[in-house]
Order: sequence, then C-alpha cells, then structure tokens
Amino acid sequence: MAANDDYVVGVDMGGTKILAAVINAKGEIVQQAKKATKPKKGADAVIERIARCIREAVDGADLKPSQIRAIGIGSPGPLDPDTGIIIFAPNLGWSNVPLKARLEANLSIPTFVDNDVNVGTLGEYAFGAGQETKNLVGIFVGTGIGGGIILDGKLFHGINKTAGEVGHMIVKANGPRCGCGNFGCLEAVASRTAMTRALRKAILKKGKKSVLTKLNGGNLDLIRSNAIARAVTRGDKPTIKVVRRAAKYLGISVASIVHFLNPEMIVLGGGVVEALGDSLLDPIRKAAAKYALPATMDSVQIVAATLGDNAGVIGASVLARQRLL
Amino acid sequence: MAANDDYVVGVDMGGTKILAAVINAKGEIVQQAKKATKPKKGADAVIERIARCIREAVDGADLKPSQIRAIGIGSPGPLDPDTGIIIFAPNLGWSNVPLKARLEANLSIPTFVDNDVNVGTLGEYAFGAGQETKNLVGIFVGTGIGGGIILDGKLFHGINKTAGEVGHMIVKANGPRCGCGNFGCLEAVASRTAMTRALRKAILKKGKKSVLTKLNGGNLDLIRSNAIARAVTRGDKPTIKVVRRAAKYLGISVASIVHFLNPEMIVLGGGVVEALGDSLLDPIRKAAAKYALPATMDSVQIVAATLGDNAGVIGASVLARQRLL
Repeated sequence: MAANDDYVVGVDMGGTKILAAVINAKGEIVQQAKKATKPKKGADAVIERIARCIREAVDGADLKPSQIRAIGIGSPGPLDPDTGIIIFAPNLGWSNVPLKARLEANLSIPTFVDNDVNVGTLGEYAFGAGQETKNLVGIFVGTGIGGGIILDGKLFHGINKTAGEVGHMIVKANGPRCGCGNFGCLEAVASRTAMTRALRKAILKKGKKSVLTKLNGGNLDLIRSNAIARAVTRGDKPTIKVVRRAAKYLGISVASIVHFLNPEMIVLGGGVVEALGDSLLDPIRKAAAKYALPATMDSVQIVAATLGDNAGVIGASVLARQRLL
Repeated sequence: MAANDDYVVGVDMGGTKILAAVINAKGEIVQQAKKATKPKKGADAVIERIARCIREAVDGADLKPSQIRAIGIGSPGPLDPDTGIIIFAPNLGWSNVPLKARLEANLSIPTFVDNDVNVGTLGEYAFGAGQETKNLVGIFVGTGIGGGIILDGKLFHGINKTAGEVGHMIVKANGPRCGCGNFGCLEAVASRTAMTRALRKAILKKGKKSVLTKLNGGNLDLIRSNAIARAVTRGDKPTIKVVRRAAKYLGISVASIVHFLNPEMIVLGGGVVEALGDSLLDPIRKAAAKYALPATMDSVQIVAATLGDNAGVIGASVLARQRLL
C-alpha cells in the first residue's frame, strides 16, 4: 500500500466533544471533524454522532470509508480494550456499551478502543515527546490524574486491564481524602481538583488575598488551569504555594515510578501541565531528583507532552495501526 | 542435550555466606555446597572462595566443570547485569568488581550476574509461587526492602538497570527518615529495621512491657525476625501493633503497585515474611484490598514466596538458563 493511501481515523471521545481525524502513516492530521457529544441523548445517539463525525472527517479528506484501514478510539473508562466494551463512563452515563461492535456494524471498518490516557500516552510515544524511547510512562494532570505505560513500544494493560492508574498510587498515607474514597492518593494532593480545594481554603477560609478572585470570573468552585497559570505569572502567592505543593507530590510520585519501573521517560501532560508549563515541570523535576536514589534517575527524561489537544486523535490512530497488525 | 545432562550452577552470594548448587532443568537441587564469604579478606579471596564453592558442588554431583552449561549468580548490588560488574556492595566492601569476567577466567564457564532480589523473584517465577504467571512483582522484606519485576517471563531492568526498588517508593510523604536519606520510603516504615526502631521506642522510651526483652536474648538493637514472630504468637501487644503498622504500609504499597502495573501476582518473601507468615500476609492483603480501586485487584494474587532459603540458588540457575539463550 502506497503511503498516500495509508489512512486511519483517530477519535478522541470526551464528555463534551467528539473529535475525529483522518491521519496518515506519518501521524499527520489530513482532515478533522468535531461534534458535541450530547451524552444526555443516550448511548445510541452518541454512537451515531461518533459515526457521523468520522464520516465527515473522511468525506472532508475526499476519501471513501472503504479507504480507511481502521478506526482507533480513546474513550473515558474503565473499558475492556479487547472487547471494546465501555464498562463504565460516568461522564457519558454509560455502562457496558459495546462501542467497538456498534461502530463496526455502523461503518464496516475495524475499530479498536482504549482509554483516553492510554491513547494519549501512545500518541506521545509514537509522534510526540517519546519518539526515541521504547519504555515510557505518561502522567496526565487535569480534573483527575491518569496515566499510561508503554513497554517495548506497546501499551501495557495488566491482568485486569487497569494498569497506569498513577493517580491512585498512594503518596501520602493517611493524607487527604481522594474522590475514590481512599486517603493520600496522588490525585487527592496534586490534581486540579486538589489545587482548587486548597485555593478555596486559602482564599475563603484563611482570607488570603489572591488575584484568582478576579481572574477566574470570581468563581472559586471550578478554577481553570489557565486561571491558575495566569495567577502564577502575576506572582500570586497563594497560587504559587499551591502549585509548588502539587509539584512536590508529582515529583515524589515520579521518583517512586523511577524507583519501581525505571522507564526511559516520564511524559507529563493534561490541562494543568499544558497551562503551567515549566513553572510546574521545573519543581517536579527538582522534587523527583531530590527523592530519587543515586543513579536511578541518571538517564530518565522527565518532559512535557508535545501533542497538546491532538494527543487524543493521534494516539487513537497509533492504537488503530498497532492493533490492526 | 538429554535432561539428565542439563546442569547449571546457581550461586547465592551474601555478606556472610556463599551457597552454590548444581541444578537440573526442573529446578531441582542435585548437589550444593556452602562457604563463609569472609569479605574482609578482599575481593580476590572472595572470588576464589566462590569458585571453590562452585567446584565443590560440581564435584559433589560427580560432574566435571565442563558439564556445567552456565553459572548464575545473585549478588548484592547495585550491579550491571550486562557486564557482570558489581558497582557497589557495602556488605562486601566491593566497588566496581568485574565478578562475571573474573569467574569466567577462573572456571571457563559462561557466567551471568544479577542482583539478589531480582534473582529471588526470578526463582519464584520459574519454580516457586509464580509458576502459572507471566507478569509478577517480588517484594522481599528483611533488614531493607527490595524487589524485582518479571514481565513476559523475563526480569525487567529499566534504563539504569535499577527497576524494582520497591523499598524506596514513597508511601508516606514527609514520613520517617529512610536509610537512603529521604523521608517516607516503604523501607523506612515496614522493614525489619523500621520495626526494630519502633519496638525499641515502645519498650525503652514508652516503657511498654514486651516479651521481646527476654525473647531476643535481651538485645533490642537487632531484633530478629524469628523473635518478632514468636512475640506475635505469644500475643505480645507492642509487637502486634508494630507488625500491623508494617503490614498496613506494605498493603498500601501493594495497592499502589496494583494500580500502577496491575501484575498477575505479587510475591512477598524475605526473612520477615518467612518468619511471620499469615500473621503478616493477612493484614497486608486486607490493607491492599481496602486501598485498591474496584476491579484493579480482582485477579491479582498476593502470595508468600515458597522457595525460602533456596530462592537464591534456584533463581540464579534460572538466570543462567535464560541468559544463555
């Protein structure tokens, strides 16, 4: 097959929007389409919207569906990557939805599903920060914290298909309560949710002055990553303190992962990392270096993800190509 | 080669004794020999003692050295498993000792070296608790805490050859100081050293009554695993409390490893686990189940090592066979 005939579709499916992109063998986006997810309309309607979004992208690239070798989808989870069944996705209101089978029936194209953070990690491995590596760990910091593991160039899923739950590794036993019900998970001390909680406490309970009371439209219930980043740029003390604390815990977790798996690279991505950049990464690197045993960190790269919003569709295209083989 | 001609030698090299065993393809010990290490006599003398210990075991099996296909050695580390150079072994007083090259020059048998906990994990994988698995993690609890990772039936070393440093994963940020200089490592809260420290504090500083003041020959500086186990059996409250605390942290770390790597099995071994058995394993399993996310623990087995003192030589024999291929 000539390179210019070699297309797959990558789909990034979220609770608010669906992105579909026709992607060539070099990982380049040839054409893309976007639709609102509208999860309230139910799973049937959402699956039909995914199919339409894919058809639009394919049509926009002047291709026929029969010219698409495979479809890869990054979906919220937990899910079963073998059967392509979404076991549970609270954002979508889904439980046990056979996404792979339904789309294959609809489009007659081989379809492969994996969770969004796994797919993001795969994208960074193949066409982003991790192109020169074989073994890497992705950590994505946003509302929660998720991760993925690439070993020998392939996603590692583990016995229950749940590998990569970096956000629920316990970094501070007996620490703050996590959304999962436990105490001291990384997600409970370093996610955007944890930062928001700490900022609300500093500003509302302790009366600290912060530009966030203006920056975020006065809303302290849901502080956006960009607002946090702008507050840091303006030297806002409560925000800087909260970011440093999150960076410390992320750095400690990076050191733990380096001690345990000693991967070639740890890629950090997600909304919080994209917005804060080096003001988050530098203290993460420092904390990791401080907590790592001599020699364990020597060749390990700790870097930012480079694909940004495209990580989902590009990673999904890599999933499609790898699983097709 | 007929099965009854298929022999390798496994060597378990410690700071106090050297064990060498002739082992067949079924992992059975045909003949073994033992020598004191006598590290104070220097590296040359120790290497000569290892060679003699191997010759004794081979001779005892009525074999000639030329009938031995390979030698595997589990050594204290850090070391380089590719070059077989022991980078640093404080127990032996060694730094940069080319153990593989020196033994190959002495015995003319292909020799392979890896660290003792990696080799122990490999033994459990091939002929111990993990025989039905492909992906497992070994955790060995003694003076310190070490570990090894088997992925797809092979030891996973990582980019700096340091993978498996389970003892220095941080379980309690800002927790007790560890021998490595950091704070809150698993080793700092759950090793025999940590248990001894906590027991000394309870008995000597807080004045708690404990059978350990008699059991361990009155010595509270170095409380042996067997003394801890006997105190638990006798219902000694301070000891039970200390063991429960260690089990809790071990269980939390097991949950973190399950979240991150989701292996098929976690094998727990080492002096403390051997001595305490289910009185340690049961609370570890309970804590792990409590801290694990739903579904992540479903198929993961948490079991005790079964090879005991033979894990070292048997694991080393597996190393020899795998590396020879």
